[in-house]
Amino acid sequence: MHFKLKNVLLYLLIAGFTVFLLFGISEAADPTGDKTFSLDLRGINLSSSFTWILVCGFMIWFMQVGFAMLGGLLPAKNMLSYMTHCFIATTLGVIIYWFVGFGVMFGGFEFLGEQVGKGNSFMGLSGFMLLGDAYDVRTILLFIFQACIATFIGSIIAGAIAERMKLCSYVLMFFFVYIFIYPVYGHWIWGEGWLWSLPYGVGVRDFAGSGVVHAIGGTVGFVGACFLGPRAGRYNEDGTTNSIPGHNVGYMILGTIVLAVGWLFYDAGGTMAAGDLRTSVIAANTCLSGSIGAVTVLFVTYLLTGHTDVGEACNGALAGLVAISAPCAYVAPWAAVLIGFLGSLIYLFSVWLIANKFKVDDPLGACSVHGTNGFWGLIAIGIFADGSYGGVHGVITGHFGQLAAQLIACVVAFAWAGGLAYIVFTLIGGIGKNDSKMRVAENVEKEGLDEHIHGTSCYPAQ
Amino acid sequence: MHFKLKNVLLYLLIAGFTVFLLFGISEAADPTGDKTFSLDLRGINLSSSFTWILVCGFMIWFMQVGFAMLGGLLPAKNMLSYMTHCFIATTLGVIIYWFVGFGVMFGGFEFLGEQVGKGNSFMGLSGFMLLGDAYDVRTILLFIFQACIATFIGSIIAGAIAERMKLCSYVLMFFFVYIFIYPVYGHWIWGEGWLWSLPYGVGVRDFAGSGVVHAIGGTVGFVGACFLGPRAGRYNEDGTTNSIPGHNVGYMILGTIVLAVGWLFYDAGGTMAAGDLRTSVIAANTCLSGSIGAVTVLFVTYLLTGHTDVGEACNGALAGLVAISAPCAYVAPWAAVLIGFLGSLIYLFSVWLIANKFKVDDPLGACSVHGTNGFWGLIAIGIFADGSYGGVHGVITGHFGQLAAQLIACVVAFAWAGGLAYIVFTLIGGIGKNDSKMRVAENVEKEGLDEHIHGTSCYPAQ
Amino acid sequence: MHFKLKNVLLYLLIAGFTVFLLFGISEAADPTGDKTFSLDLRGINLSSSFTWILVCGFMIWFMQVGFAMLGGLLPAKNMLSYMTHCFIATTLGVIIYWFVGFGVMFGGFEFLGEQVGKGNSFMGLSGFMLLGDAYDVRTILLFIFQACIATFIGSIIAGAIAERMKLCSYVLMFFFVYIFIYPVYGHWIWGEGWLWSLPYGVGVRDFAGSGVVHAIGGTVGFVGACFLGPRAGRYNEDGTTNSIPGHNVGYMILGTIVLAVGWLFYDAGGTMAAGDLRTSVIAANTCLSGSIGAVTVLFVTYLLTGHTDVGEACNGALAGLVAISAPCAYVAPWAAVLIGFLGSLIYLFSVWLIANKFKVDDPLGACSVHGTNGFWGLIAIGIFADGSYGGVHGVITGHFGQLAAQLIACVVAFAWAGGLAYIVFTLIGGIGKNDSKMRVAENVEKEGLDEHIHGTSCYPAQ
Repeated sequence: MHFKLKNVLLYLLIAGFTVFLLFGISEAADPTGDKTFSLDLRGINLSSSFTWILVCGFMIWFMQVGFAMLGGLLPAKNMLSYMTHCFIATTLGVIIYWFVGFGVMFGGFEFLGEQVGKGNSFMGLSGFMLLGDAYDVRTILLFIFQACIATFIGSIIAGAIAERMKLCSYVLMFFFVYIFIYPVYGHWIWGEGWLWSLPYGVGVRDFAGSGVVHAIGGTVGFVGACFLGPRAGRYNEDGTTNSIPGHNVGYMILGTIVLAVGWLFYDAGGTMAAGDLRTSVIAANTCLSGSIGAVTVLFVTYLLTGHTDVGEACNGALAGLVAISAPCAYVAPWAAVLIGFLGSLIYLFSVWLIANKFKVDDPLGACSVHGTNGFWGLIAIGIFADGSYGGVHGVITGHFGQLAAQLIACVVAFAWAGGLAYIVFTLIGGIGKNDSKMRVAENVEKEGLDEHIHGTSCYPAQ
Repeated sequence: MHFKLKNVLLYLLIAGFTVFLLFGISEAADPTGDKTFSLDLRGINLSSSFTWILVCGFMIWFMQVGFAMLGGLLPAKNMLSYMTHCFIATTLGVIIYWFVGFGVMFGGFEFLGEQVGKGNSFMGLSGFMLLGDAYDVRTILLFIFQACIATFIGSIIAGAIAERMKLCSYVLMFFFVYIFIYPVYGHWIWGEGWLWSLPYGVGVRDFAGSGVVHAIGGTVGFVGACFLGPRAGRYNEDGTTNSIPGHNVGYMILGTIVLAVGWLFYDAGGTMAAGDLRTSVIAANTCLSGSIGAVTVLFVTYLLTGHTDVGEACNGALAGLVAISAPCAYVAPWAAVLIGFLGSLIYLFSVWLIANKFKVDDPLGACSVHGTNGFWGLIAIGIFADGSYGGVHGVITGHFGQLAAQLIACVVAFAWAGGLAYIVFTLIGGIGKNDSKMRVAENVEKEGLDEHIHGTSCYPAQ
Repeated sequence: MHFKLKNVLLYLLIAGFTVFLLFGISEAADPTGDKTFSLDLRGINLSSSFTWILVCGFMIWFMQVGFAMLGGLLPAKNMLSYMTHCFIATTLGVIIYWFVGFGVMFGGFEFLGEQVGKGNSFMGLSGFMLLGDAYDVRTILLFIFQACIATFIGSIIAGAIAERMKLCSYVLMFFFVYIFIYPVYGHWIWGEGWLWSLPYGVGVRDFAGSGVVHAIGGTVGFVGACFLGPRAGRYNEDGTTNSIPGHNVGYMILGTIVLAVGWLFYDAGGTMAAGDLRTSVIAANTCLSGSIGAVTVLFVTYLLTGHTDVGEACNGALAGLVAISAPCAYVAPWAAVLIGFLGSLIYLFSVWLIANKFKVDDPLGACSVHGTNGFWGLIAIGIFADGSYGGVHGVITGHFGQLAAQLIACVVAFAWAGGLAYIVFTLIGGIGKNDSKMRVAENVEKEGLDEHIHGTSCYPAQ
């Protein structure tokens, strides 16, 4: 038995601290909804928003099935490792977000008429553990929706650092990201912090997270992949690249469809109001952008290689979906098709650039799918917003202020996530690459992480 | 690099044409929903319908996960080929439907008080690319729901032509089906065209697509399977049939449950109105019909072979679900059980007939599940409709007019889809069977389509 | 052909009886909803509840995908057998529930203002086959939601009796459970029978089935596992235990996420009213309890074995979800975290106890996940209910009556399900263990049930 007293003590300390905090329950705002709901027009409209937001939030959590299945593009020997990263994001992500992330991200934010405690334009300061006034049906509605979204960022990063990172290093990094990097940047836009209020255009807008979720996640993943260095066998001595085949391309297809469907709920649910009928346009935009991304990559890979590479096409679909996340509410369907089309080309270029020029190894293409296209999505608002929704005017309407705001959001996202990730990974693993403390031993990498870290292969022989 | 200048030019031409059209944006009806929604009874009722239709539509798209998993009944070497067909249906299907199919199917149709431009009783003429007046929250709500449904037909056909069709031939056929065959017949019933208005009974009714989707898809698939000829090794020289085993029966079970759940959303969502409480009866009917179909086939295969064939039972469930699609809103639960029971027997008979008498090779049984039971579903309305909903009276209430209308719809569906499919496949591939231009080369078929067309196996060896 | 005349006659008899009953249709209450819905506040509120309950019900049925995937922890040779059990629960479960279970469980219950015929405090007596007055949109809404839940119990039991039970014995047991054991106990709580009305606290409460579904299912499964005896090779002669490895740990992860997402719909949908805004708290509680269960087991297995056992962690998540099912509506988020944390520890202890002390072989840990934690969930209400919802006060508010009621529910559940299961299994198989008539022959168990019972492996070789 590998019993470590230190770990137990640490765990007991955390648990004890938690229990201590738990019992500080004050008068809650409205934990049952009796005061919030009434059988009148406003009440029924509110209850419709509740069910809408809940259904969308639940299906957003479901997208983790899709993330986990993307591991089909990895060798079987590391499948369980990757899936465990996703599973940790799915579960530990919720717990950390409940403990502290939600309060940092939305403290001070007003939602459905209920203010989530205190906060400033840099970060929120209330709502931790949903105690006190946060034990309220509206605040907790916001929590459950956002907690499901928050689980993503761990899975995005998992795709970039797959097949070579130690589990404990991943978990350490994970805490930093969920406690600070993600919720603080999220607060600046979704929590109506300083980026939201920028005096260009209407301020930064990011409807469903091209920036908050994907650009941040992709950037952290990129820094992690830089620190870890490429997988053994990925690059030859002459600098050429080897493709490392996956073990189940079908999983990639299934996972992509699961993600695409979840994306519809995610984007449309972002209205946070059943009475906002723009939902239908949002859904159509999302569906079209993802679809054209897939079709474009399918066609382009056929032109370039003579084979229709359906695995790549799946990433093309995801690129289109990431790109449309931010602008989905602000643009017309034709623009959504254009954004997805360009997004998939940007994806292909970014994959080539990162793999062959930067020599950074990103096993699932997460940096290109989520990172690069996350930035593209932020920018696309500034270009294609047609002014019909939320007062957001892009370049096609003759306004340039919004584009300026969106570009600032890009620069800030890159600097914030990149800079902090640099610090975090330096703290965890040191600067050295292949001899990094974050990286598993050579024999572990060769034999597969699954057996060594999880004690079993994903597909145990009978 | 297999670079073909012709293809690039063609693609640029299409793209250029698209962009040209895109910028012809006129005054849109109500792209934000501000004019459509108001905080009154009508407005809230409408917004409830919006969220209901969106949730159902999204889950209908999700059914493609189920379709793709049915490939478990195919050999592993062609899994990726089949899944790619489904993936193309899921993505390219949406794009073509947006480009032209939706306009053909619903031009002139009035939805939630908003008319989708112009159309006549033969076909619609408005709504293409959701431009102009079609940039409206209600029209786009109809679009996103119908686009998700439209993706089915490609996957249905994929089951019948699996393991031997060239990808480019599939895509060519696909364009014909999505631009013309499917939306025009759809317009005749769902777009309130001439079949809808037939002077027998209340006119043709097809609540959730036994005819529009499944009978059409099954018929096109059947014609395709006839043209392609059977897979190598399917028939012996003495005319006896070989069963070609799949590679993952579990996928079939999972895929069937995914489809069954999606079917509940599909059928119940067909009310297109949250205030239509018949939804609960529709859902119960769908659930019961699919369930009895599965149970019946499980029992019958046990009687006939001594084994409980759960793969067949899955097709039995799908047969029951196809059969109840059209009548789900018009019949009582006991009738739904009967329809599903008979549907599963019809499926078994149809499979035997097609495989052993017609000698047509239908790898996934799509012609029997979707085709034969699609027609049975259309007919079942004429028999079992109990007059409680939509004024539809079947034979059990003593009326025969509705049955006449439904039979006409069957004949028309078979003639329309069969005739046009005959022309399309003749154009694409010539009449010859095994030497058809639509069919992959012998060695490709022998070694599996995946490696040859997609450059990788679905399950690459490590 | 293994044709058995006796079976055919039996089937015809059942079918004939069914048809006879089917045509006894009386005046139905409101089969279309026209009388129930009106465009006023009450009507729209009701229609919102309809769509909410339907969406949740559909996603509950979807959880069967998750149950089937848990079979990844079994050897491949018995995968199809286990999945068939789940598939039978998914389909035959609905049919039996429609035929008789629903009437037994909810006869006499009033739902949305509509009474489901007659019933007493022991069992219901109306609503069979949804005939007569039960052909009503509200009654059928209750039916479809409950039918989807009812399918669970068969899948729970399937996990405990996996890899060694004859299919016909499973089906016989299944009929008993669905006709009597499950619906009668369900009637006592959910049908507002005698347990619901106990004069302690507010009477027994079980919001989403820790007791009705999981404790009952786990107990029946435990008795079944006792009767069947352990799998060959599970125990050595010296009494030590062998772990029997599964074939696809990834399936376990995917299945768990599917189940967790479905659980959100299940618990939140349990309000049966869109206007009950407590849904958000319920959802957050469910999400937190499952997540902490996973995290705890991940950490504990690492401490104990040096490996992070993600398969066990999945069961930890499920344990947390089972534990929170009953109390999800009555407790605050902090308590949900505590309940899930304790639930996962209880799970680990229970697994150890059952495997190593009782020497009962429970292949998927169903007895510990569903059984033990089902009882823990019932008890947790009595401890942690904070009095904010439904007037339920637990020990933390200084009241002990509720805990008494919940403990009675536990004792009754154990005695009822355990006692009847003992009788049922005695009738089916006799008391002997390895020579039980319920158990497959030795060579069948050795070679795998799939080939022998279903005529094919789950993964047929090419």
